[in-house]
Amino acid sequence: MKAEIIAVGTELLLGQIVNTNAQFLAAECASIGIDTYFQTVVGDNEQRLVEALDIASKRADLVICTGGLGPTQDDLTKDVLGRYLTKALILHEPSMERIRSFFEARGVHMVESNARQALMLEGSDPLPNDTGHAVGVALEAEGCRYMLLPGPPKEMKPMFTGYGKPWLLKAMGEERPLYSRMLKFAGIGESTLEHELLDLIERQQDPTIAPYAKEGEVTIRLATKASSKEEADGKLQPVEDAICQRVGQYLYAREDIGIEEAVLRLLKERGETLVTAESCTGGLLSDLLTGLPGSSAAFKGGIVSYSNGLKHKLLEIPMEVLEGEGAPGAVSDRTAELMAANLRSSLDADYALSVTGVAGPDSSEGKPPGLVYIGLAKRDGPVEVTKNRLGGSREIVKLRAAKQALYMLWRQLVSQG
Amino acid sequence: MKAEIIAVGTELLLGQIVNTNAQFLAAECASIGIDTYFQTVVGDNEQRLVEALDIASKRADLVICTGGLGPTQDDLTKDVLGRYLTKALILHEPSMERIRSFFEARGVHMVESNARQALMLEGSDPLPNDTGHAVGVALEAEGCRYMLLPGPPKEMKPMFTGYGKPWLLKAMGEERPLYSRMLKFAGIGESTLEHELLDLIERQQDPTIAPYAKEGEVTIRLATKASSKEEADGKLQPVEDAICQRVGQYLYAREDIGIEEAVLRLLKERGETLVTAESCTGGLLSDLLTGLPGSSAAFKGGIVSYSNGLKHKLLEIPMEVLEGEGAPGAVSDRTAELMAANLRSSLDADYALSVTGVAGPDSSEGKPPGLVYIGLAKRDGPVEVTKNRLGGSREIVKLRAAKQALYMLWRQLVSQG
Repeated sequence: MKAEIIAVGTELLLGQIVNTNAQFLAAECASIGIDTYFQTVVGDNEQRLVEALDIASKRADLVICTGGLGPTQDDLTKDVLGRYLTKALILHEPSMERIRSFFEARGVHMVESNARQALMLEGSDPLPNDTGHAVGVALEAEGCRYMLLPGPPKEMKPMFTGYGKPWLLKAMGEERPLYSRMLKFAGIGESTLEHELLDLIERQQDPTIAPYAKEGEVTIRLATKASSKEEADGKLQPVEDAICQRVGQYLYAREDIGIEEAVLRLLKERGETLVTAESCTGGLLSDLLTGLPGSSAAFKGGIVSYSNGLKHKLLEIPMEVLEGEGAPGAVSDRTAELMAANLRSSLDADYALSVTGVAGPDSSEGKPPGLVYIGLAKRDGPVEVTKNRLGGSREIVKLRAAKQALYMLWRQLVSQG
Repeated sequence: MKAEIIAVGTELLLGQIVNTNAQFLAAECASIGIDTYFQTVVGDNEQRLVEALDIASKRADLVICTGGLGPTQDDLTKDVLGRYLTKALILHEPSMERIRSFFEARGVHMVESNARQALMLEGSDPLPNDTGHAVGVALEAEGCRYMLLPGPPKEMKPMFTGYGKPWLLKAMGEERPLYSRMLKFAGIGESTLEHELLDLIERQQDPTIAPYAKEGEVTIRLATKASSKEEADGKLQPVEDAICQRVGQYLYAREDIGIEEAVLRLLKERGETLVTAESCTGGLLSDLLTGLPGSSAAFKGGIVSYSNGLKHKLLEIPMEVLEGEGAPGAVSDRTAELMAANLRSSLDADYALSVTGVAGPDSSEGKPPGLVYIGLAKRDGPVEVTKNRLGGSREIVKLRAAKQALYMLWRQLVSQG
């Protein structure tokens, strides 16, 4: 199947936002064996959207549009595709009901235009929106398949993964299915990982080995087409084994979860608790942990000690450690050690993670941006401290430091068996 | 002038990289009054690249291509445009000289294919590459302007800024530049804002009024073409005034900054300090604040009290407020009030923000997802508490709650004058 991805939105044409949706969808399509030959961006303009649809439907078998499903006058995609294919718009009752209850539950008057988000094209399959209001649409018409997805990535991604991709797999039906495995690594950079696996990556044919990085984590996707799961496993397992032999100590999951989720699962299995003492990450570590539903079962909370005063008052770090001639300073192994040890014992948690460093862009205490100390205190046993030199902007140093701290705890948890 | 941006590269079609070049070029074009109506992505394939060039040159006056200028067999862009326009490729001697010296200086043998990077089309203007090897190309042919830029952003951006943009400005010569203003709003949702301004938006012609939303913030961009700044101001000011008359209380900045930056600037101007007590936002509020360099001058830190135990121990909330028959509970105005008041006084800060609520997806204490209480304590004066009903996924409720808290503090700071 040949796909074309059309992103609809004037904010893309003005360069106000980056088209990350196209990347996500292109990678997702590639992962199930759908080739993308073109991507297009077009504004919220009927005539030009029709032109884009017309070109795309002639050169592709599948046209995926994102954006323009919202409640405002600018949101044209469903109307325009309806007119292009001469299909009426009809109300999808379950979506309408969902929108109505949403407003009722909040005691807010529903503006009429919100009903537009519950519309679908006649003869189309609805793609439910679990994280927003606009229902998606999938249909086959005049020899081409169309899929309309919302623009906000927080709605688009779960809709595609949960409903759009299964719809496509069903439509592809008879093709030999693609089997894939996902390996997630933390505590190792993308370039180091690729360097370790370079010969494997270079001579890959089948299965394919595709590494890609988000900040702080690296994913490797292995994929092969096969007639049965057994046949696929027979091809995938030796490659996975070869990879694990070299970099297995960094492999924290065989599914698409963040290191924070891997850590929380292990803690919950053991009925253990975690607290955090953050300086340079400024709350990002606890934000990552609390991003997951149910995290409160293991994560009790923490302290963001962004000033020496708070490190002293809330974490009982002696001022002579933090400041003055010859003191280790706020960014030091000693401070990281005390932050973790003191918080763990005062809150009676099983583990405490501490992070103190220089996020940048400027130096601090004469120490360079990217220098980060991470402490891990446990109920029984000594406090471990690592010294890390992390690259990147302020935002990236914060994220890498938080992920590195989680990796340290994950190593501790799995090494305990 | 109407532009189309074509990004060439199979790695874009596979979703291996995000097309940040298109965003950069679109924003740059918009800033000098060039409208972009379409963006396209195409792989390293002659036939499909010709197709993309053909479509683009018919609907635009300016076609900007990025990518495919490198030394390898895959790098086709110059060859393909040359054949498309029947223009020969000729060597650009200064670029060739630069490449030769580069290899000589390193004592490395220059592979023949590197010479390809010094080629340009006959009749074209060279765009020098100060950060790499491939020379860029700009030309006018058959009523359309073409510009070929390298793919790597670190070569493309300086080439465009240093040489491409001046070339375009010269080509545009007599055209009137675009003047724009950016208005940033918080504390109001996109649909409510649009509803308030619907008649203005619907009858907009010149200036244009373009609202767009990121979670928790809404931006409106006003733009007009004019011969002078005075003429532009004369057109933009009445529209801005009309908008402010209706929703001025939510306007926190006239430039592209987040509400956290607006708050930090005001605090720093006054030499005042802030601490945070977070429950459902789980550290996101302090993460947003510490994302900005220099935030430590005003933000001292905070507490993430993700369990009732920590609310009691670290924030001194009485257990009878948090739990038991008839207690207000952790998610209540009373808890929000005490969190803010107690932390502010114990840390001796000028302001404390507190957030407690239900991030979801499940209810908590029988209270629905999206219900969030925000407290604001100040050194002199009573604690304010607001009750908010926020929509969206767990992640979005967290973000909206954090932004709403910042909006509350911002209102307080500006109302003090």
